[in-house]
Amino acid sequence: MSFIAETQRAVKWYPPAYDIRIEDQPIPQLQEPDDAIVKVTLAGLCGSDLHIYRGHGGVESPIICGHEFVGEIISLGKSFHYGVTGRPEGYAELKVGDKVIAPFTVSCRECHSRCVHSTLFGSPSLPGGQAQYVRVPKAGGTLFKVDSITSLLPPSESGRGLEDSSLLLLADILPTGVFAAIQALQHPRIAPFVQGTPFPYNGYIPSGLLAENPVPLPQEDRSLTVAVVGLGPVGICATVSLLDMLTDLRRTSALQYRVVAIDPTEARRSKMQSVFAAISEPTDAGSFVVASIEEGKEVISQWTDSLGCNVVLEVVGNNSALTLAYDLIRPFGLISSVGVHSSPPVPYTGKQLYDKNVSFDFGRCPVRATLPFAAKLLLKRQDIFGGVGEEASLVDKIVGIEEAKEVYEEFDKGRCGKVLFNPWK
Amino acid sequence: MSFIAETQRAVKWYPPAYDIRIEDQPIPQLQEPDDAIVKVTLAGLCGSDLHIYRGHGGVESPIICGHEFVGEIISLGKSFHYGVTGRPEGYAELKVGDKVIAPFTVSCRECHSRCVHSTLFGSPSLPGGQAQYVRVPKAGGTLFKVDSITSLLPPSESGRGLEDSSLLLLADILPTGVFAAIQALQHPRIAPFVQGTPFPYNGYIPSGLLAENPVPLPQEDRSLTVAVVGLGPVGICATVSLLDMLTDLRRTSALQYRVVAIDPTEARRSKMQSVFAAISEPTDAGSFVVASIEEGKEVISQWTDSLGCNVVLEVVGNNSALTLAYDLIRPFGLISSVGVHSSPPVPYTGKQLYDKNVSFDFGRCPVRATLPFAAKLLLKRQDIFGGVGEEASLVDKIVGIEEAKEVYEEFDKGRCGKVLFNPWK
Repeated sequence: MSFIAETQRAVKWYPPAYDIRIEDQPIPQLQEPDDAIVKVTLAGLCGSDLHIYRGHGGVESPIICGHEFVGEIISLGKSFHYGVTGRPEGYAELKVGDKVIAPFTVSCRECHSRCVHSTLFGSPSLPGGQAQYVRVPKAGGTLFKVDSITSLLPPSESGRGLEDSSLLLLADILPTGVFAAIQALQHPRIAPFVQGTPFPYNGYIPSGLLAENPVPLPQEDRSLTVAVVGLGPVGICATVSLLDMLTDLRRTSALQYRVVAIDPTEARRSKMQSVFAAISEPTDAGSFVVASIEEGKEVISQWTDSLGCNVVLEVVGNNSALTLAYDLIRPFGLISSVGVHSSPPVPYTGKQLYDKNVSFDFGRCPVRATLPFAAKLLLKRQDIFGGVGEEASLVDKIVGIEEAKEVYEEFDKGRCGKVLFNPWK
Repeated sequence: MSFIAETQRAVKWYPPAYDIRIEDQPIPQLQEPDDAIVKVTLAGLCGSDLHIYRGHGGVESPIICGHEFVGEIISLGKSFHYGVTGRPEGYAELKVGDKVIAPFTVSCRECHSRCVHSTLFGSPSLPGGQAQYVRVPKAGGTLFKVDSITSLLPPSESGRGLEDSSLLLLADILPTGVFAAIQALQHPRIAPFVQGTPFPYNGYIPSGLLAENPVPLPQEDRSLTVAVVGLGPVGICATVSLLDMLTDLRRTSALQYRVVAIDPTEARRSKMQSVFAAISEPTDAGSFVVASIEEGKEVISQWTDSLGCNVVLEVVGNNSALTLAYDLIRPFGLISSVGVHSSPPVPYTGKQLYDKNVSFDFGRCPVRATLPFAAKLLLKRQDIFGGVGEEASLVDKIVGIEEAKEVYEEFDKGRCGKVLFNPWK
């Protein structure tokens, strides 16, 4: 039995804003039978942490920050004891000592899709992961065993370990990117391009009401134009996910695609370019452009004869991004929004939404359901999801937890990319 | 050749509001090769006509009203001449003398799904159908031959004619109702209930990234709760369409459903009850309730243990309805909105939409694509879509066009249901 101190170091945010302190805190204890205590090996700083940091999160008391972490289970509640049945497999499978990824929200896995218990780590309801230890509720549903990812590696690589800095991307940003892309390609207004049959012949069709057989969409109608708005780490993950799916679709269908990835910040566009250079497959003839806002508008207008694009992946989380997304899409288009939005009213009139037949999918990724897909992409793309501080890496650097105050400032001002905290350094 | 007068009678609206006049107008002429001139036999008065009537449509000059009409082709442009190829079949098939339904918008059928030429009849861009004659642009794509509906009748009934008052429901309200329902059941956030597999396993899945096989949803997770908000004629059509689809699904799957149809107006609830009594199939065990707003909230709360419903079909078109829809749905739910909204900003903050993972599909039905489905439902449900003025009929009465001013007033004040104009009476 290893010695465990009574207190731990943790990153705390104090209201009203911009006040980060690294403090001694009690080590969390098991409270419920479904709980696990995880010793954190790495925790991420995420763009959406800045909502709270800047005081836009509506949070009024101090909290332990962070919703991205990987670590090791050091303690499990009674639900994990031998003989408990009828629960998600995690309650039988997880053991003390297991290496795990915590999705950014609690997921019971006892309800469908987006968990009704979806509590966010690093919120007033649940202390976060920028700490040495974290209590994980509903842990048998929530935690994802790292073993189940590395077992997917081909036998020739089965000895290869995945770095914690890579695994950490599965806590939030890569599943969120996969989610933004997949919910767009599955949407009934976009599925015609993907499946090649016109609306409404993609999905459930009333069996007693079968109408004329659908005429397959002609080649010239299978050109899908997508804009990604926001090229922070999640936006890059969304773009990589989307391009992977579109390339996949081109293998077996006549789909054509054109993607423009838009951000006003030069450094972010430059990172996106480096990532694209690392992943682009020369056999693929889809179009991809990285652009400023003005350039992006111009490109879409040229590509679509001023009609607008079919899909916007909105990965920013403010009203400028929502307004831009509206301006960019064509009638019957979709805005797949995973940006974390705050208190201002959304910038649309009902008439605008009606007249343009706009569809929206807002909100948080059902991360536990999406994580297995993201894990496969993580394995496939270790060139970008595997390194730290390289030109095409998503992770910029790893710092000790004691540097958190400075790093929050730096990140808030756009002076660094994605940063991870080692809580033991 | 029949004698045609130089002028016709038409219903005109004058700004700023509430000013309806029945006037002599020039008979429209062919302007483009794709045009048809249709002699109107019946025209509908629709709830969305009231937006213009009340001065909420942003219209600043007089217009000929109406976007629902059936009639007979009296003249066709050059695109319909023998030998023209490569166009939608209508250009080869339509003939002078054909009985036709005009969907409420122009649809070229040369682009996919929601037509980019989607011009609304009875708008500043295009004179409407509450008149003796109408010019129909892109007529080979737009007009729907009545023959193609009656040919769907079983041989034993092939002699049965469909009344114009029934066919007119295919111009807008029945396809719009079908659309509201089908786009909801096809949505990736709702498809799990319909298909029985969890998100994201309904629709496109990246082939290289197949994750763990999905566990089929257990029976208790296949209970779909739907609210219809607004029981005007379109809301009733949406409810009938939805119930038809849900009954269809129950035949082949374990889907359970509960539907609450909500309207604050007693007369509308009463009509909905009569329609439901006419269509309900005693073999089906889904739940259906008609409710006031407060009753509706209470029912959903009871049914879902305060969680909220999965889908709201919003068939009103104002901010009270949008607010109610938000309050009624659970996280990861869908608001399928076909209400015609006007200039106020929508009543949501970004935080509300993010936190609840709300999806929306806004806007106008791609009516030409949905019309064949609606036609089958029309044939199947002549008990409600076939009569005029009966307890379960959707059409309340047919009046002469000269009575339009009084009828607009009556309809605006909720003193009558759906009214049709006979422009020759």
